[in-house]
Amino acid sequence: MNIVDDARASSAPSAEHRTVTTGPIAGSSKHYAEVPGAPGLTVPLRRVNLSNGEHLDLYDTSGPYTDDSPDAPPIDLLAGLPQPRHAWTRPAPAEGVSTQLAWAKAGIVTDEMRFVAAREGVDVELVRSEVARGRAVIPANRNHPEVEPMIIGKAFAVKINANIGNSAVTSSIEEEVEKMVWAARWGADTLMDLSTGKDIHETREWILRNSPIPVGTVPIYQALEKVKGDPAALTWEVYRDTVIEQCEQGVDYVTVHAGVLLRYIPLTAQRVTGIVSRGGAIMAAWCLAHHRESFLYTHFSELCDILRSYDVTFSLGDGLRPGSIADANDAAQFAELRTLGELTTIAKSHGVQVMIEGPGHVPMHKIVENVRLEEELCEEAPFYTLGPLATDIAPAYDHITSAIGAAMIAQAGTAMLCYVTPKEHLGLPDRDDVKTGVITYKIAAHAADLAKEHPRAQERDDALSRARFEFRWHDQFALSLDPDTARAFHDETLPAEPAKTAHFCSMCGPKFCSMRISADVRAYAEANGLTTVDAIEAGMAEKSKQFEENGSRVYLPVSPA
Amino acid sequence: MNIVDDARASSAPSAEHRTVTTGPIAGSSKHYAEVPGAPGLTVPLRRVNLSNGEHLDLYDTSGPYTDDSPDAPPIDLLAGLPQPRHAWTRPAPAEGVSTQLAWAKAGIVTDEMRFVAAREGVDVELVRSEVARGRAVIPANRNHPEVEPMIIGKAFAVKINANIGNSAVTSSIEEEVEKMVWAARWGADTLMDLSTGKDIHETREWILRNSPIPVGTVPIYQALEKVKGDPAALTWEVYRDTVIEQCEQGVDYVTVHAGVLLRYIPLTAQRVTGIVSRGGAIMAAWCLAHHRESFLYTHFSELCDILRSYDVTFSLGDGLRPGSIADANDAAQFAELRTLGELTTIAKSHGVQVMIEGPGHVPMHKIVENVRLEEELCEEAPFYTLGPLATDIAPAYDHITSAIGAAMIAQAGTAMLCYVTPKEHLGLPDRDDVKTGVITYKIAAHAADLAKEHPRAQERDDALSRARFEFRWHDQFALSLDPDTARAFHDETLPAEPAKTAHFCSMCGPKFCSMRISADVRAYAEANGLTTVDAIEAGMAEKSKQFEENGSRVYLPVSPA
Repeated sequence: MNIVDDARASSAPSAEHRTVTTGPIAGSSKHYAEVPGAPGLTVPLRRVNLSNGEHLDLYDTSGPYTDDSPDAPPIDLLAGLPQPRHAWTRPAPAEGVSTQLAWAKAGIVTDEMRFVAAREGVDVELVRSEVARGRAVIPANRNHPEVEPMIIGKAFAVKINANIGNSAVTSSIEEEVEKMVWAARWGADTLMDLSTGKDIHETREWILRNSPIPVGTVPIYQALEKVKGDPAALTWEVYRDTVIEQCEQGVDYVTVHAGVLLRYIPLTAQRVTGIVSRGGAIMAAWCLAHHRESFLYTHFSELCDILRSYDVTFSLGDGLRPGSIADANDAAQFAELRTLGELTTIAKSHGVQVMIEGPGHVPMHKIVENVRLEEELCEEAPFYTLGPLATDIAPAYDHITSAIGAAMIAQAGTAMLCYVTPKEHLGLPDRDDVKTGVITYKIAAHAADLAKEHPRAQERDDALSRARFEFRWHDQFALSLDPDTARAFHDETLPAEPAKTAHFCSMCGPKFCSMRISADVRAYAEANGLTTVDAIEAGMAEKSKQFEENGSRVYLPVSPA
Repeated sequence: MNIVDDARASSAPSAEHRTVTTGPIAGSSKHYAEVPGAPGLTVPLRRVNLSNGEHLDLYDTSGPYTDDSPDAPPIDLLAGLPQPRHAWTRPAPAEGVSTQLAWAKAGIVTDEMRFVAAREGVDVELVRSEVARGRAVIPANRNHPEVEPMIIGKAFAVKINANIGNSAVTSSIEEEVEKMVWAARWGADTLMDLSTGKDIHETREWILRNSPIPVGTVPIYQALEKVKGDPAALTWEVYRDTVIEQCEQGVDYVTVHAGVLLRYIPLTAQRVTGIVSRGGAIMAAWCLAHHRESFLYTHFSELCDILRSYDVTFSLGDGLRPGSIADANDAAQFAELRTLGELTTIAKSHGVQVMIEGPGHVPMHKIVENVRLEEELCEEAPFYTLGPLATDIAPAYDHITSAIGAAMIAQAGTAMLCYVTPKEHLGLPDRDDVKTGVITYKIAAHAADLAKEHPRAQERDDALSRARFEFRWHDQFALSLDPDTARAFHDETLPAEPAKTAHFCSMCGPKFCSMRISADVRAYAEANGLTTVDAIEAGMAEKSKQFEENGSRVYLPVSPA
């Protein structure tokens, strides 16, 4: 069945707004691969077609939007995406619980596990065992049938999340839906809708029904809207009903700041930047107002029961994360982390999947300690960090200050990275900022996969570098994270089509091309058996004259078009 | 005396082109501080003037161009910058040698050492001893009297270099001079002129006479131009005369690829990207053509004598550096590094200062090994690396792929980072690319200074974060690496001036501001003595009502202007 709830129907964008970005990424085409052990199930691939006849298949997060094949389903935002998961097999409950964690612990392999194993190119048993250990999660609410399941865990490729969402001051539903499609197009593995302004429910409905990637939220934001923005007026009942409303819609994971305890609040009083997490600040205000532990903490088991019935995953929020280099790794941050560890044990005992959120702002020499402690205190639950920013001094470039920290913390074992855009600390990201943030974080995640020697990671680097060395410009663009911008930059200095096959580039011009001299050197060395130190040390002086005649004059008059 | 050689006079830009970017950076003003022990000598500072009456003085590379005080010298590109170093004391030769290295080893403290010590805020004896050990260099050709000396070494702040230069296909003298001024404005510590096209001598002359930062070159490029681009036609004599020509002009350091030995060439034959260094490829072609070791290697001592007589610093080039992730840390790269170590010993025995160039493209888990080996093989001579790029898959974003590697390699001990711009591998950087590259590398260098716990590094982060927490928007902009862009991004969503003092921002809007709730929480906690765990655990329930009345309703109706 296709959920179009009244709210969404009534808030339907006008016809001219019902369009989002579609079509394949330049140089690639959409393909689907069979899922072993699950007849009829297929995983999406981005196939890069190379000019030498070869191709490289890449992990694809973009959903049906990049499929331009004749038999592809039409894109209709009002109807929403197809809902393949309705046809998937759902096993009987394991000891009364129907979550990926419960099934994995019971030794049951689900279609979701088979799907992600095929996507990652790993054995499904690795997926099952990591989920069973709680070292990986598959965020897939049973009410989000449009989702293409994915896995978050240190044994798998590092994932990235993109945040979108309107606020009281900006943005519309149409913009947010396009941002979701756009983020997924460039590689976002999950999406968080952090809307705090008007139409929170409607915006989320539009996003969920059209999102091929898991969607996360922070329910306290909507709960606070319901009480007119006064944190002291929040109650467990208002919060509970909000969580149920969002689980019913199909949210796949929720951030819960249940680790902000009353006694931790004073630990932030002497900080340079106090409490910078919105959820953390809201709960701190509530705790002080009522001088009680927060209802998120006191009702945590009840919350577990709600999430379990939809297989929604906890993302235990770090409400006391550092907001500056000065506050990194302090008492408040690590006190909360210890509490998140206790909550992890409780959630898993209820059969609920859990990941743990991390900082924030951390100097490079204090990054690894965050991962070590999280693994020690939280049973190696997947770590999900925001950056961290490695310095505070570059507002407008915080996608870069944080990409440095993100790559390092991912190398150390973080499973998912929440992106930061150039607008961080300054404004809300627009469409271009979303793309910049996603591409920047794909770089950080991939750099970490290389450093972890992930089986598939280096294939793409090698394919691109080979294309670069052989002057296959179109292949170099197609294999890159952003073919459009790579080509545009090349066009700026050498626009003409012939330049796309020329054996030089604008950096050095035809006479200075080291790649080209190097190719000639290699050809000469191989032609003359000079491919070993011994051979060359044998000293074949007679070769040199011959090389001068036909080899060393490598600068044939190739002039830039 | 003010050098305006004929070449420069004849190639003088037309009047309308004789302008470069001048004036202070937004929110800052130019100041000069006395140099202890050197009466009359002053070091430049960028003073950030804060709205709370405080100020923060920052290291300043921008030269007279950012000085708008009434008594500042007028900027005249044809006349060139003032030449303060002519007035500085030059000690008598130490054992016949007049270089910073020779003087340092003889225990003599020079004005250059006093100048850089004042700039870095360290004891001059640290400067002298590090230079004497060869663990730091002060690149300052006696024929570059316009330069404001700086020091490159692991004991000091991490430095960055910006590359500019025209090629056969692009650019003009005017553009290159403005790029130099522009790069220095945003924080480039040194500049390399890599011109390979027309007017190489003239372009360099214009840059040198107007550059407050040290200038480096790769003489083999100009030598190759002199032999019509045929590497086999290169000779020691042509190269030697080119080096002398450049030393006479005032070049402060030169890249010399003397480590490319004949027997190493075959080690590159099986690489994914062969030889990617221009200089390396040129010398490899020469070696194979003549089947002899390169003249750079066989005439190295003679080259030392030339550089010594001007106190020009060697930057021993890594002609066999890896050009892809696949080729990182391979036999060719490390074989050359060992030879660079032997050449370091020779150069220092001649009294010549030396730094060592490093890669390139290196995955994160192989970065530290590069620093360890360089220090072991090259007597800890300052390491000067290009990036390295932590992945190959993001052309158009290689300032970011390389900033990740650069920050990590600097943390491990690299003294200077050569920037990479978004145009790397695709085209020549324009003015905007130069700025993006410089700012990105200032981020990497500063992140490393923080990780190395450099005494002054965190002051700026703390000042900016304090401004952020207190909603002093103008101070936050002024303290950032790029105040103009930070302000522009903030203006996009909240343009009006009142928003610059509003106690919220566009990310969350007035009702959701965590910084603001946090400030209220802090004020409440402090007002009620709840600043310790004990105090709060004492459980003062009666406080809560009071807080509800006056504290928890933090959302006064402040609406965005």
